[in-house]
Amino acid sequence: MTATLNQSESPADSAEGSVHFRNLEPLFAPRGIAVVGASRREGSVGYAIMENLIDGGYQGVIYPVNPKARSLFGIRCVQSLDSIDDDQLDLIVVVIPAPYVLPTIKQGVAKGVKNFVVISAGFKEVGGEGVEREKALKAYADENGLNILGPNCLGIINTHPEVGMNASFGPLTPNRGNIGLISQSGALCSALLDYAGTRGIGFSRFVSFGNKADISEVDLMLSLWKDEETLAILMYVEAISDGRKFVEAAQLITRGPNPKPILMIKTGRTSQGAAAAASHTGSMAGSDEVYDALLEQAGVIRVDSVETLFDVAACFSDPVLPAGRRTAIVTNAGGPGIMATDACISSGLELCKFEDYTIKSLKFQLPAAGSFKNPVDVIGDARHDRYRAALDAVAADDNVDQIMVIVTPQTMTNTTQIAKEIGETRKFCKKPVVACLMGAGEVQEGANELRSKYNVPTYTFPESAAGAMMAKCRFAEWTKTSASSREVKVNKEAAAKILKGLTDKGITSLVEAHAMQVLDAYGFPTVPFKLAANADEAVEAAGKMDGPVVLKIAGPKILHKSDVGGVALNLNSDDEVRNAYNTMIKTVKQRMGDDVEIWGVLVQKMLGKGREMILGLSRDPSLGPLIMCGMGGIYTEVFKDVAFNVAPLDEADATRMIGKTRSAKLLDPVRGQKAADKQALLESLLKLSQFVIDFPQVAELDINPLVVFEKGQGCMAADARIILSGGDE
Amino acid sequence: MTATLNQSESPADSAEGSVHFRNLEPLFAPRGIAVVGASRREGSVGYAIMENLIDGGYQGVIYPVNPKARSLFGIRCVQSLDSIDDDQLDLIVVVIPAPYVLPTIKQGVAKGVKNFVVISAGFKEVGGEGVEREKALKAYADENGLNILGPNCLGIINTHPEVGMNASFGPLTPNRGNIGLISQSGALCSALLDYAGTRGIGFSRFVSFGNKADISEVDLMLSLWKDEETLAILMYVEAISDGRKFVEAAQLITRGPNPKPILMIKTGRTSQGAAAAASHTGSMAGSDEVYDALLEQAGVIRVDSVETLFDVAACFSDPVLPAGRRTAIVTNAGGPGIMATDACISSGLELCKFEDYTIKSLKFQLPAAGSFKNPVDVIGDARHDRYRAALDAVAADDNVDQIMVIVTPQTMTNTTQIAKEIGETRKFCKKPVVACLMGAGEVQEGANELRSKYNVPTYTFPESAAGAMMAKCRFAEWTKTSASSREVKVNKEAAAKILKGLTDKGITSLVEAHAMQVLDAYGFPTVPFKLAANADEAVEAAGKMDGPVVLKIAGPKILHKSDVGGVALNLNSDDEVRNAYNTMIKTVKQRMGDDVEIWGVLVQKMLGKGREMILGLSRDPSLGPLIMCGMGGIYTEVFKDVAFNVAPLDEADATRMIGKTRSAKLLDPVRGQKAADKQALLESLLKLSQFVIDFPQVAELDINPLVVFEKGQGCMAADARIILSGGDE
Repeated sequence: MTATLNQSESPADSAEGSVHFRNLEPLFAPRGIAVVGASRREGSVGYAIMENLIDGGYQGVIYPVNPKARSLFGIRCVQSLDSIDDDQLDLIVVVIPAPYVLPTIKQGVAKGVKNFVVISAGFKEVGGEGVEREKALKAYADENGLNILGPNCLGIINTHPEVGMNASFGPLTPNRGNIGLISQSGALCSALLDYAGTRGIGFSRFVSFGNKADISEVDLMLSLWKDEETLAILMYVEAISDGRKFVEAAQLITRGPNPKPILMIKTGRTSQGAAAAASHTGSMAGSDEVYDALLEQAGVIRVDSVETLFDVAACFSDPVLPAGRRTAIVTNAGGPGIMATDACISSGLELCKFEDYTIKSLKFQLPAAGSFKNPVDVIGDARHDRYRAALDAVAADDNVDQIMVIVTPQTMTNTTQIAKEIGETRKFCKKPVVACLMGAGEVQEGANELRSKYNVPTYTFPESAAGAMMAKCRFAEWTKTSASSREVKVNKEAAAKILKGLTDKGITSLVEAHAMQVLDAYGFPTVPFKLAANADEAVEAAGKMDGPVVLKIAGPKILHKSDVGGVALNLNSDDEVRNAYNTMIKTVKQRMGDDVEIWGVLVQKMLGKGREMILGLSRDPSLGPLIMCGMGGIYTEVFKDVAFNVAPLDEADATRMIGKTRSAKLLDPVRGQKAADKQALLESLLKLSQFVIDFPQVAELDINPLVVFEKGQGCMAADARIILSGGDE
Repeated sequence: MTATLNQSESPADSAEGSVHFRNLEPLFAPRGIAVVGASRREGSVGYAIMENLIDGGYQGVIYPVNPKARSLFGIRCVQSLDSIDDDQLDLIVVVIPAPYVLPTIKQGVAKGVKNFVVISAGFKEVGGEGVEREKALKAYADENGLNILGPNCLGIINTHPEVGMNASFGPLTPNRGNIGLISQSGALCSALLDYAGTRGIGFSRFVSFGNKADISEVDLMLSLWKDEETLAILMYVEAISDGRKFVEAAQLITRGPNPKPILMIKTGRTSQGAAAAASHTGSMAGSDEVYDALLEQAGVIRVDSVETLFDVAACFSDPVLPAGRRTAIVTNAGGPGIMATDACISSGLELCKFEDYTIKSLKFQLPAAGSFKNPVDVIGDARHDRYRAALDAVAADDNVDQIMVIVTPQTMTNTTQIAKEIGETRKFCKKPVVACLMGAGEVQEGANELRSKYNVPTYTFPESAAGAMMAKCRFAEWTKTSASSREVKVNKEAAAKILKGLTDKGITSLVEAHAMQVLDAYGFPTVPFKLAANADEAVEAAGKMDGPVVLKIAGPKILHKSDVGGVALNLNSDDEVRNAYNTMIKTVKQRMGDDVEIWGVLVQKMLGKGREMILGLSRDPSLGPLIMCGMGGIYTEVFKDVAFNVAPLDEADATRMIGKTRSAKLLDPVRGQKAADKQALLESLLKLSQFVIDFPQVAELDINPLVVFEKGQGCMAADARIILSGGDE
């Protein structure tokens, strides 16, 4: 839906799949705006907002509410909201001290207004009573079905010519463009507006969401997705409120129908809570890597600086996505050609090989000293015609997915003329073309021409161009993936029954014997095991297993089994099992005291050689259920080389997780070992993901190790621990 | 020595330690210049150089050499070099077709000129006869002791007001400044000049060195080091000609007396030759990581884009180096404060903790809503006075090494006034202060003020600021290191004797038995071993070793011993040794044929548990002798997790190499193992480095494994191979 003031009726909220849409159009395109706290005092926020509304060319009616002033910028002031007689008053902007905000909103609601922008600070961010104030605001919004932006925000801008609303106190009104920007920091918004202007970047919508008491980053990104004017969604976020909701919404936006890229600067690394967690997974969650994984899973392009944010955004001003990573470079100088090659390769792009006919065509049209391979060198004295010939030849090559053109100003170079030919080639060839006009003063005219007339992304140096092109390639690849759900066979009821039996007994911290029972019942592949209460039972259980067995001490408080003599490996006969049993019980009692509770021993089949992995689960208060996967032993403990994702995982998520770590190379054929059974590992991850969803009471879980055998041989959990919520570790 | 035209006599070349200095001052500050190929044709190179010389304000005498023109820019042309009657003619710039270049230089030499800038292309870069032409040029330069810059270059610029020479065909004459720039690419030079201008960056000297037939990047960087006007040396290099020379010169420049930073963009990854190498070391050399290591060893700051090059260079415009990494942030907005924190931490900086008195002072002077911890938030309505108060308080704190100040333009913000106070604080506190004025248009005036009046490095966003500050910190740390040489005890003669004995027999590919003898003789710690020609000798040798032994088949062509049954481990008795010997000989013959040459077996003491490392050596045609070090097994083979440096290593180099890889963590106490004997490993690296220097005929060497025992227990080579140059493998 496009913003327009001619809305006869506000469309209702809606949903697509599990994603809920709030209708924020009345906020973005109100027919009338009241500014409570509009001020005549220059330099005040209430003045700045009025000034921006007028300078921005707002197409509706403005009502400055100020009991002390007669007029503001020639507009007659109203004494209070009550005095406004307009059933098209859709939005109230509130710029008054915090204690008066809620009463004002109530007045607005009494007049039938549902949409508010609360600029005022003095809420959660100041602590103490501010926190209570914000809770009350949110509660009132929920009760009355309101849309409240803020509090503590810069405001909202919609540059659509039929709206022309700058309801913010930013330093200027941005140019119209195709970028939608959502920012948690108001101060940063100001800086971004200022900076973007000098780069010739325009915006469709611009929102500062402040404390997000009511409207969240997720609501806003969904609303920008629905906005036809917006081609790319840029976000600055310090904290994501709900990881699962965010991932679902972002996946819909980035690879649903009509996909749009989301570019994000995410700051504010959290490490709180990580130290307190008991499991491997828990202790590694909360780090910035988890956010990285979450954003990757969501299809979001994460960038780490404002410059890169706009570099990448600029690349999306050309809506055509590249078919692949194969890149051709056309340059008029060798050195910059080498720079560009390096930049492309290190960004992840590929330098394509030309067809013979392309090389022939280039040879025919370029001087002998040129280079006819990739990168193509048209040489320093090239004019626009030679550039055009080279570009057309390269663009026609089927091996070329996109082109980077480099122009260095040399004696004969007319950059503006060359820029025009680059633009014409782009029009003609339907493949993305990106220009690097290396320099500043001289090349400005050409750069402006390329950007404004031809939508050709234009950069100064190849590094930023290559980085942006690669980000766009990744996005193009991402849009082709889909949430491939894959059925996994599990037995929820059986596992639920065991869990219930345990919790009924007050057991919430499940050691190996219990945890393995739960997983086994659920349908997770586990090593054959049996809990034996005495030596005879152990011998009997061992007899039923094919080959040697392992004994492990079992008891509710025995966590570090090896340390207390509680593990015996490779037992081959009845006698060995019996002796091991007796010795083990004796040793454990010696080391832990006679009154240690011992259930008996766990008899397990001794496993053949395989790769030992760790799978894990923890729950992050804001990000939700996190699944972890990594190689066991030093790879997890020393190198922290693990991958995270938010549950539920789809098949693509699980595949990506398996390949993500550096040690994933060890799953391939290595040093005489055959490849590992990645398929079985994938299945286990998906089962774990389903388990997490089926049992919200599971707070933490470690499967360590999951032994993954060679391809076709499957995998088995050999040890596990589960902590239920409310459990004491 | 400062550039000046009043040189009565050219100073001679000189040396410091092993570094040779060419005196290039006559090239940088000639009293008279002849331009052979000066042209009246606009757009031609010969015209552009004349124009630049005149526009640049050259302080000496210009002689345009052009037989067809009467004058150029009002200067009387000369017919030929012969017609010039001036004993202060120091430099000839050559802009004529390649075949005429050498004859012209000869004419110049006949007139007593020693310095030439050859702009002309048509040499090595075109291949064929161009290569021969360049060789002839170089040979003539060597014979006659000339300084020739180029060929195929943009030219040379010296902005010193007493010289004012722009002998280049670049697009403009740069502002005077403190940056010296050396570039292998002429086209890039043009772009850099243009770009730097818009960032307000000035240059002291600016050189394009083209094909470097004679004057190399090393000659130029040494000459910029001697130039008082130059504070930072910036380089664009595609290939380093001589790794060892480069490292020595760069170390002298960056941590010798009067250290100057070298910033480099190094493009053009080489992989040639790597595939052909037989050893582990060889197969991994030639990659970009080797260049990374080389530049780190040289003390060079490597950057990967032009933007970063100038970001970092700007930070050195303030000559004071930070005492440490402890950084204070002062901001007027929360979001940008978080961005800055993230940027600092991820760059490697530390956020300092303030003393109590600082926090008290901040509390006293800032409003209650501010933040008094790091980052300090002076809040959105802060004016210059509040910034000054906060900055002074923070600057006085002993825990603060440097300050990043962030200003976001808000309603009350007068950026120019605040900028002035930032500058005054910097003057007062003698610690580096870096400013981020977030935005563009509005904040320009303040930014210019800070840069030009106060030498305060000023950026738009915190990411580039933090990266630059960290680069400067690293440089500051580097300048404090020294080439700490450490005596290692070796026996060169003994090793030389064995090597000679082998080469006399025509043996150049040394398998384990020989290689271990050489290393043992040299004084390298090796596992006790003895070559036994029959079973009796083996039993006798084993008897003399304390504890179990290993047998390994020994023969000139047997490379993969395990594969042919040529290794037997853990032999404890005479019988076991005898049986193993006989079985081994039999099996090897079965598998390799009866006529395989077998010398016998190597009897080695079986080693206790330790970390297995690989040390290696290969020689790169341009970079020189490369030493490699890494964990053995999968870490080297699968993860390629190894560190390189150029020999000779000093102690700091070796220490850095040991800590450089990810797997270095495994040398620390891990999973119940005590720390490894890093001291012994260091000693081995230094011995290997000395070995490389002592024996230039050693082309490749692998010690695999070097078993490193726990701290205090030393290390031992357990297997090795050496390939001598001319070797057949």
